[in-house]
Formats: sequence, structure tokens, C-alpha cells
Amino acid sequence: MITLSSDFGSPYPAAMRGVLLSHDPQVRLVDVAHDLPRQDVRAAAFWTRFVLPEFPPSTHLLVVDPGVGTDRAALAVRAGDHALVAPDNGVALPAARALAGEQAVEVFAYAYDEPASNTFHGRDVFAPLAAAVHEVGADRIEELDRVSPAEEYVDHRLPEADVADDGLTARGEVLVVDDFGNAITNVPGAFLAGLDDGDRVRVNGEEVPVGESFASVAEGERLVTVGSHAFVECDVNRGRGDEAFGLSAGDEVVVEREE
Amino acid sequence: MITLSSDFGSPYPAAMRGVLLSHDPQVRLVDVAHDLPRQDVRAAAFWTRFVLPEFPPSTHLLVVDPGVGTDRAALAVRAGDHALVAPDNGVALPAARALAGEQAVEVFAYAYDEPASNTFHGRDVFAPLAAAVHEVGADRIEELDRVSPAEEYVDHRLPEADVADDGLTARGEVLVVDDFGNAITNVPGAFLAGLDDGDRVRVNGEEVPVGESFASVAEGERLVTVGSHAFVECDVNRGRGDEAFGLSAGDEVVVEREE
Amino acid sequence: MITLSSDFGSPYPAAMRGVLLSHDPQVRLVDVAHDLPRQDVRAAAFWTRFVLPEFPPSTHLLVVDPGVGTDRAALAVRAGDHALVAPDNGVALPAARALAGEQAVEVFAYAYDEPASNTFHGRDVFAPLAAAVHEVGADRIEELDRVSPAEEYVDHRLPEADVADDGLTARGEVLVVDDFGNAITNVPGAFLAGLDDGDRVRVNGEEVPVGESFASVAEGERLVTVGSHAFVECDVNRGRGDEAFGLSAGDEVVVEREE
Repeated sequence: MITLSSDFGSPYPAAMRGVLLSHDPQVRLVDVAHDLPRQDVRAAAFWTRFVLPEFPPSTHLLVVDPGVGTDRAALAVRAGDHALVAPDNGVALPAARALAGEQAVEVFAYAYDEPASNTFHGRDVFAPLAAAVHEVGADRIEELDRVSPAEEYVDHRLPEADVADDGLTARGEVLVVDDFGNAITNVPGAFLAGLDDGDRVRVNGEEVPVGESFASVAEGERLVTVGSHAFVECDVNRGRGDEAFGLSAGDEVVVEREE
Repeated sequence: MITLSSDFGSPYPAAMRGVLLSHDPQVRLVDVAHDLPRQDVRAAAFWTRFVLPEFPPSTHLLVVDPGVGTDRAALAVRAGDHALVAPDNGVALPAARALAGEQAVEVFAYAYDEPASNTFHGRDVFAPLAAAVHEVGADRIEELDRVSPAEEYVDHRLPEADVADDGLTARGEVLVVDDFGNAITNVPGAFLAGLDDGDRVRVNGEEVPVGESFASVAEGERLVTVGSHAFVECDVNRGRGDEAFGLSAGDEVVVEREE
Repeated sequence: MITLSSDFGSPYPAAMRGVLLSHDPQVRLVDVAHDLPRQDVRAAAFWTRFVLPEFPPSTHLLVVDPGVGTDRAALAVRAGDHALVAPDNGVALPAARALAGEQAVEVFAYAYDEPASNTFHGRDVFAPLAAAVHEVGADRIEELDRVSPAEEYVDHRLPEADVADDGLTARGEVLVVDDFGNAITNVPGAFLAGLDDGDRVRVNGEEVPVGESFASVAEGERLVTVGSHAFVECDVNRGRGDEAFGLSAGDEVVVEREE
């Protein structure tokens, strides 16, 4: 099984599907998303870290590649029973660690030939590499031609929120805004431990109710909840949290709870 | 085979795909749509009633769930050889009746454990239930753990148009506006029986030509036709009917024909 | 394997998926795109010509059909080991020639029965025909019921740029603007042969640097490059070329290089 993630929109992902199927007409292809925020390594790292661990052992092709056409490397990453194929910009590392734990991640560089184009390495470099990795399996990546352990590579770590010692203040930021408009922060859900529906916290100085779910507040009302990513989200029941809170990806978020 | 329908946008559906494939790496997944109008039970009921009967016997996972995180039940519905898995808000019932007829529909409730999240029951409740239903098959839903015949459940029926006894006036409403801008009403296509290209009807008081297809009128012109759902549509040839007629989902539509 | 391309948006393609799977529950379905520019035969011809050659031998269902409901024919096209099924408006011919070469293309007409609807031939005419073509295989299209060699059919050729004899001026047009905002012209990439990063050309009179890839210029800067389609593109590094150059599909583009 090969999963596909990119910021390519449409119809470029279909060219990658064709390449993968030309290598192995029997391979199962599963789309993760092709509308990841464009050239946004952090968002792609966030979403794949969130989604890929739901999958059984697979090869994950992940192309968000602002450096296309430069000499950045192409990587194949072993993460336990999973493999990831991605450009060397750090995008694959958070998901790799989520899949297998920090210690089990091994990174390989692929010395690709001059590709057919300088603008579409998804088709010309990464899909062929993913097909090759899929063919041999995650445990045999190093047997591939022109693949060798990466001596160095770009890492990417999602920023962590700073939680004060007394556990009453968390200073973080918005990692992504999802399709629903939920502003997903990096404040760990545990920060809200012990608070119940109707309790209140301050978000950037404004008092907001805590809710177990969207439906904890009336339609159109703001709330703070712990999302399915186990992070604190700034939401609106049946509305857009990003707009109601005035938050975009990267914005600082300070959450305060009372003693 | 499992079909997937939701209002989740992207990339949340991929988490459901991963869960389903983790239960059965061989299962075929077929997307119906993940951009159903958000939290709109009626639109989801309309579209799945329209599309699902085209499929061979399948398990249909259908998550449009404005009540996520409340204590609304999770349902598994037997509809002949098909099964549907959906929240208990009526969304699955119109498709179930279309698949198997009113008498053959049986509704089961699933007493799920506290899920991992209160905001993503698609991943944590409905996908696992769909995987389980798929595994046993539509004819053995009641053998599943914590599944029992539903004593009561929310139903949803798409509103029916009121056609006058003389067959000359139909009073209905717009059920949905499709991606092309066609305003699909609940006036049965049969109301236009016997009318030909060039005949005219009144729609909310304005005279409009009837057409067998979009091409029956010049580009940019309005027409009324019988759509592929067998309902009367208010359309524009190569344009948007919703804008030209000033119609949105839920708006009243009165169609009048002459004797 | 059957690929699907259309301008149907969502959820209409799912009805075609259902029809294809009802004919053969084992068939592999691969989406190319369903957000092709609406009723735009040229754009659909461009994108399928670009993408379909990446696929192994397949049946390609391609429905961009401004003439739906008129008496235009339904075609099945043999292109070597591939087959295409499309309305008779020329949309399938550029891809067919790209798949198999001009000489190997054979066009068949399908005398379909009155379909169930006049507005959704994708479901009622083309998907059943694609299922039938898939069943017999590209080499036996003529054995199908009601299928016979097309005596005449609509062709479509993408316009070609006019390159002056001295190779210094190319007069073409924008074929499509892709999702990234790259304005893809029909000027062959070879027109820029011998130019390197930092060399400059004139595009509609304005001097613009040539780049091997987006990253050849600073973020936000315009460039002209040879895209993965082997045509000259007007781009912006991490931005939208269409906006920066003021170009839309169909606009004239004159590219001039110095001796």
C-alpha cells in the first residue's frame, strides 16, 4: 500500500498515481490529501503526523517541496514497518517519529539522476523512489540502488508550547487551521485536565468556556476544547473558530486557567 | 467494499481510511464525497439517496454529524444487501429506503465505548463500526458486540412537493444546489410530463422554457428540466441556475403549467 | 484499470464509480481529476494528454461534455493498449495521440439507447460504455454491441505556437493556468534551448529572467521556465504567475530571445 500526500491540488497527483501504477499495477494507492497548505512544511508535517499512524504498514509518499529544482536531496525514511519518501526539508520526520518512535527512525538519501523536469520531482523523482521502496519493503531500503544512509538531513520539529511550572499558563501558537476553521494550537490537551463543561479559561486575555465537544456551547458560540489531535483547539460550535478568535496559523496563543 | 461520505473536507477523511484499512488491509474503499454541505443532514441524505443505489452491495459509511460529542447514538442500518453506518440523526434513512425499500430497512444501535475524542467520532466510532459491519456482512449486523435493534431512532424524510389535483400547480422547495449551480427541487419530474422543448411553465411567477436538456436553450438562458434525480431542476445552459433564478436550498418553488 | 476524468465536481463522479463497480466489483478505479475547468474541452484535452501517458494500459473515461443531451455521439477510442471513452467533441483525441501516436488511433461510435436522463450521460451512457470496453479490452472494442468504426468525428488539436525561422520569436498562447497559478503556454520548451539561469527573454514585451526551476529566482519574483509538460511557463517563485504576468487561458503570449 502506498499513501499519497501533497500540496499539488489537481490534476498533478494523477501523474504520480500513473507512475506508481506503471511500476506495479497491483499496488493499492490511498490518498491522504493533495490540498495541504501550499509549500507549508509545518502544516504537512502536522497533518501527516496526525493521519499516517492510523494506517497499517505502508509506504507514504509525501511531497511538499518548496525547494523543487534545487539540489536538496530526496529521502527515504524507515519508521518501523512503515517507510516515507519525501524531499529533504524535514517534512517527513514528525510523522516518522509518530509512527515508530525517535529511536527507530532511519534516514536514507537517494542520489537521483537528472530528472525529466525541474518543476515536477513528484512525478520524476519521488514517485519512482516510492515505487522502489514499496517493492523492496521498509526493511530493505538500503538495498536500493543509489540509496545510502543520510549523513545529514534537514529535520523539522513542530514547536512545543511552554507550560508554566504552576500549570496555569500555556504559551503556544496555532499550528494549523483545519477545514472547519478550528484553530489547532500546540498547547497539549492535558493543560485543560480537570476542567469541565462550563469552566472558563482565558485565550489571549479573553474568557472562553471549555467544552468537551462542540455541542457543549450554543450554536455560534466560541469554546476551547481538546481536539482529536490531543491539542487545545479554539473553535466555534457550527462555525469558524479562526475567524471568531482572530487566529491564523503561526499566531501566538496564551491560554490561562485559574487555580 | 466500503463507501465513504462525509462533510469533513480534507484531510480528516484520510484518518477514517487508515482506520478501515487497519481493520482490513484488503478492503476496497470508494469515496462518494467529503465535501457534502457542512453539517447539513438534508443535503447528505439527498446525495446519498441519489448516489448509493448505483453501487453493488456495500457497507456505506456516512458521517455528517452536527451532534458529534453529544450522546446521540451510532447506527448500523441494514438495507437489503447493503449496510449503512451513520450517526443517529436520520441522515442514512433516505438512502436505506432507496436501496432496499421501506419494509426491508432495519436499524441497529451501537453502544460504543467512550471514544478517544469528542470531536472526531468519524475516526473513533463510525469507522471502527463500519469495519466491523463490513467484516460480518449486512445480513449479520445483529451478531456484533454491543449492537442491538434500535428501539427508537431519528428518521429524516426529504420533504415532498404538493401537486394540486388538477396537476397544474406544484408547490415544493429547493432540496440542494449542485456544484454546477443547478437548483434541484423536490417537484417530481412527472409534473412536466407531456411538455416538450419550447413549452413554457411558470416558476415562482416567471415564465421559463422547459427543456429536455441544457442544450435545449441558448447558452446563458434559463430553463426548467428533469434532472438525473428525476426531479425538476432550475438551470441555466452553461451557467448557474441558482443565481439566475435567485434560489437557494430550502427556498420555496411554485411551478405552474397551463392546461 | 479504469481512470476517471471529468468536470463534474462532487458528488456526481461517485455515481459513475458506482456504475463501473456494479459492472465489475473487482475493477480498479483511479481518479485523474473531477475539477477540470468546466465544459472546457481544450483544458481537459491538455490535462489528459499530460497525465494519461503516465498510466499503464487502461480504459480512460473522460467526460467533459458541454453537449450533454444533444445528439452528439459517444466514442470509444483505441490508442494502442489503451482505450478512451468520451463524448464526440474532440476531448479524447490529444491524449489518444499522446498514448499511441497518430497512426494507431482508431475511433468507434457507440449507438446508445435513449438514456435514463438527458443531463447525466456520464452515469447513463459513458460509464456503462467504459465498463463494456474495459470488459472486452482495447483490442476488441469493435466486438461490442452497437459499436462501429466512426465515419466521422470531431477532432480537437491544441493550438501550436508559431516560432519564427530565426528561432528568436515565438508567438503562442496560454493553454491552461494550473492550480499553482503557472500560466502554461504552447511555446515549446526547446525555444529556450541554450539559455541558462539569469539569461533574460521578453514576454509580451517585458524582460523576464529564465530559470531552470522556480528556485532560480527570489521568492515572489517572476520567471520563465520549461515546465514538466515541456512547454514554456510563466511563473512566480512561490506565487501565482497568472496574476503577475496578467495572463489567462487563451491569452496571446509572445516570447522573444536575443541572438
